[in-house]
Amino acid sequence: MTIQTANLNQVNPYLPFGDRQDAPFYGKDILSVKQFNHADLNYIFGVAHEMQEMVRRVGTFDMLKGKILTNLFYEPSTRTSSSFTAAMERLGGSVIPINEVRYSSVAKGESLPDTIRSLECYSDVIVLRHPETGSAALAAQYGRKPIINAGDGTGEHPTQALLDLFTILEEMGRVNGLTITMLGDLKYGRTVHSLARLLTLYNVKLNYVSPELLRMPADVIKEIGDKLIPQAEYTSLDEVLAQTDVLYVTRVQKERFENPEDYEKVRGSYVITPELMTKAKSDMIVMHPLPRVGEISMDFDDDPRAAYFRQMEYGLYVRMALLALVLGKT
Amino acid sequence: MTIQTANLNQVNPYLPFGDRQDAPFYGKDILSVKQFNHADLNYIFGVAHEMQEMVRRVGTFDMLKGKILTNLFYEPSTRTSSSFTAAMERLGGSVIPINEVRYSSVAKGESLPDTIRSLECYSDVIVLRHPETGSAALAAQYGRKPIINAGDGTGEHPTQALLDLFTILEEMGRVNGLTITMLGDLKYGRTVHSLARLLTLYNVKLNYVSPELLRMPADVIKEIGDKLIPQAEYTSLDEVLAQTDVLYVTRVQKERFENPEDYEKVRGSYVITPELMTKAKSDMIVMHPLPRVGEISMDFDDDPRAAYFRQMEYGLYVRMALLALVLGKT
Amino acid sequence: MTIQTANLNQVNPYLPFGDRQDAPFYGKDILSVKQFNHADLNYIFGVAHEMQEMVRRVGTFDMLKGKILTNLFYEPSTRTSSSFTAAMERLGGSVIPINEVRYSSVAKGESLPDTIRSLECYSDVIVLRHPETGSAALAAQYGRKPIINAGDGTGEHPTQALLDLFTILEEMGRVNGLTITMLGDLKYGRTVHSLARLLTLYNVKLNYVSPELLRMPADVIKEIGDKLIPQAEYTSLDEVLAQTDVLYVTRVQKERFENPEDYEKVRGSYVITPELMTKAKSDMIVMHPLPRVGEISMDFDDDPRAAYFRQMEYGLYVRMALLALVLGKT
Repeated sequence: MTIQTANLNQVNPYLPFGDRQDAPFYGKDILSVKQFNHADLNYIFGVAHEMQEMVRRVGTFDMLKGKILTNLFYEPSTRTSSSFTAAMERLGGSVIPINEVRYSSVAKGESLPDTIRSLECYSDVIVLRHPETGSAALAAQYGRKPIINAGDGTGEHPTQALLDLFTILEEMGRVNGLTITMLGDLKYGRTVHSLARLLTLYNVKLNYVSPELLRMPADVIKEIGDKLIPQAEYTSLDEVLAQTDVLYVTRVQKERFENPEDYEKVRGSYVITPELMTKAKSDMIVMHPLPRVGEISMDFDDDPRAAYFRQMEYGLYVRMALLALVLGKT
Repeated sequence: MTIQTANLNQVNPYLPFGDRQDAPFYGKDILSVKQFNHADLNYIFGVAHEMQEMVRRVGTFDMLKGKILTNLFYEPSTRTSSSFTAAMERLGGSVIPINEVRYSSVAKGESLPDTIRSLECYSDVIVLRHPETGSAALAAQYGRKPIINAGDGTGEHPTQALLDLFTILEEMGRVNGLTITMLGDLKYGRTVHSLARLLTLYNVKLNYVSPELLRMPADVIKEIGDKLIPQAEYTSLDEVLAQTDVLYVTRVQKERFENPEDYEKVRGSYVITPELMTKAKSDMIVMHPLPRVGEISMDFDDDPRAAYFRQMEYGLYVRMALLALVLGKT
Repeated sequence: MTIQTANLNQVNPYLPFGDRQDAPFYGKDILSVKQFNHADLNYIFGVAHEMQEMVRRVGTFDMLKGKILTNLFYEPSTRTSSSFTAAMERLGGSVIPINEVRYSSVAKGESLPDTIRSLECYSDVIVLRHPETGSAALAAQYGRKPIINAGDGTGEHPTQALLDLFTILEEMGRVNGLTITMLGDLKYGRTVHSLARLLTLYNVKLNYVSPELLRMPADVIKEIGDKLIPQAEYTSLDEVLAQTDVLYVTRVQKERFENPEDYEKVRGSYVITPELMTKAKSDMIVMHPLPRVGEISMDFDDDPRAAYFRQMEYGLYVRMALLALVLGKT
């Protein structure tokens, strides 16, 4: 046990890790993309990049040994919960998975603040997914331990936005100067709203391509415009594909359309195929938050520009970085 | 691996831990509060206290490294299963969670003895939650590995009673000489029955405050009385609040009442508020097994006498102690 | 961390373990019993035997520290998923459990190849249970990481067949020369088909005892016969029990019969009791894939020939061996 304690504080030969209570994110909650400035992002992405190096070199390390993460998911999200589980385990920590909130006493009338204050008796950090907007902020108000928002209703999903941005940075080598085209359902897509907001910290050009019914909401456009980011709307990808550096594809859901025929018509015109992509740059990338259901042809998967599965992997590194940061390890 | 084996048996600088097959609880089942005498409780709480010290000092330690706990929950109880998971993980062990018994082959007609004998092929200790009274004893009869009863029907939930008692001990510094008032639903509350039984090992005075409909059952009162513990029943908290050292609040469930108006009337008269608590001692504590649904006002949470969230944390230490004990580590 | 990396590669004093990319099963998928030859089985069972020794001597070891297994179960199988979880944890690795595929985004129309390619971003090996025959092969075609088939529809369940064979080897000391009698539902039992196929790599005599309705399928009999393995069919166990070295009992399910009376008649005639077993050899064994529902009387459980719970434990060692093998550790 002496040895172990020593390990927790030992000087890492690769990274300047340690138990640093003066670390910039120590004990902080991760609630919204709005909480980050440019310097914060640089810091987070620097750590995420180092996580990537470490995973590739040694697979796992004991930075968070002895720390416990509770994955509190009021609605299921296999992908997000798995990603946080893997992130915690790759750092040597443990996970308490709570995926069945609907069956449990937690659901039987107990308030979110009480649930949080109970679970933090066992845990060092809580990842929360909740269907109601504002839940993460409520949890953070009552909790003593860091809360990481893994999606609260139509509100925020900040770790998704961070991993999207990290993907652009790692794949393109920079964010400034890029033309980023968002495609598909831009009205209901929480993902594209958060990413667009985060991109206002950089010098980018944004294109929005969607059916009339699913245009980027006016308030988001205004918010982005206020930051002097050039934006343009289109209904066809053809007009902007050739200039695009990052094509961010989202799913167009059938349920959004009153008339199924409208859906079928629209759907076909936003499918990414190898043929279509002959018109795109050779050094651009295609992203997608996944799961996809037909928006990108599987024939395109082996194209080096298909970045969507790598995007999942970057998510692991970003979540590792966030866990290490809020627990004061870097 | 040599190093690891050595760790398992190494002399702990803080505690006299090791692989002791002569340890008093080695290989034992934890089935009922009735199995413990005063010396047992002293021993368990001594270890639980040391666990608390260790967690606060180093967070985690590898006492149960290589040991596997199976959490076999035939009915959901997020709080209890999470607490055992955290306890095992803080001791360096691993957990196999089986929360979905209803969907699995385990549920398809297999007998509990067969399920236990199958799962113990993989595990070193099994925590069992089952809706039928007597299941834990049945499991223990057939199993070779220790069984810890995490609640069997209207029967026992011994680890809850132990953590309640440990909370009193840690918060008040003693149990003897205290006046303990139990409030709310004393008829159906498994928790208060077990705690009352356990308290007969000490010199305490017990007050029961409940609506007429939800009085402490006659057989429990007789059992306690046979041990010469002074008991008194009340319908109003006012009569005893000022003398109370420990106020144990339980939930009054609406379903217990035929007439909803009766419920509403009763409910209001048992709500703990800051105003009400001005009449109580300054060094008393308020406990609750949680979840609460209105029995204690959230306005009272910041009062130092509000011990119910700390009670959750003491549960962690008691469960760590029990796991270490039955696995022969102390 | 330096220390940890060193551990991963250190020379094990007991076994010749290490990070061997030239290891014979490194990176391989485990999809079907048909992929193994006699030498493969010898190798796998040699490692499984060493795993057994290690577990008994030290309980656990860090051979797969830092490796992550995803348990991707599209249909529930507590027993199989628990076994793989325990195997991974006993080797020091971590597990991402995905048991709720039906509720999650994974189920919302995403293709199996996409799910596999997403999850392998976080994991080093994936154990897949899926209701559709051929799913494991499909997953392996798209995945970069090893896939272990934990049952795909009426197709294969190779790790069950391997553990059955390992049980025979460990309990009887050999496979060649044995008379193996399969009893019960031989028509629908995936288990007996796979085991029979695997046994053609040895010199054995096979007896099939079943009701007329549930006979071993003609194509399996032909396949076995082509390998020149002697086979014989019976409707009564009496005719072959005395000569049997291994009695493999399976469950006869009521649903297979149109007439419930036929079921009751048949059922009774295939129940293993202590009385019946007085006619069997003293050094034979009785196996069962479990769960049982009355096919073997609980009165027989304490007989040393009752090998079915030990069979579960052998499953742990076989799965530990397979995980270590595909991850290149031996």
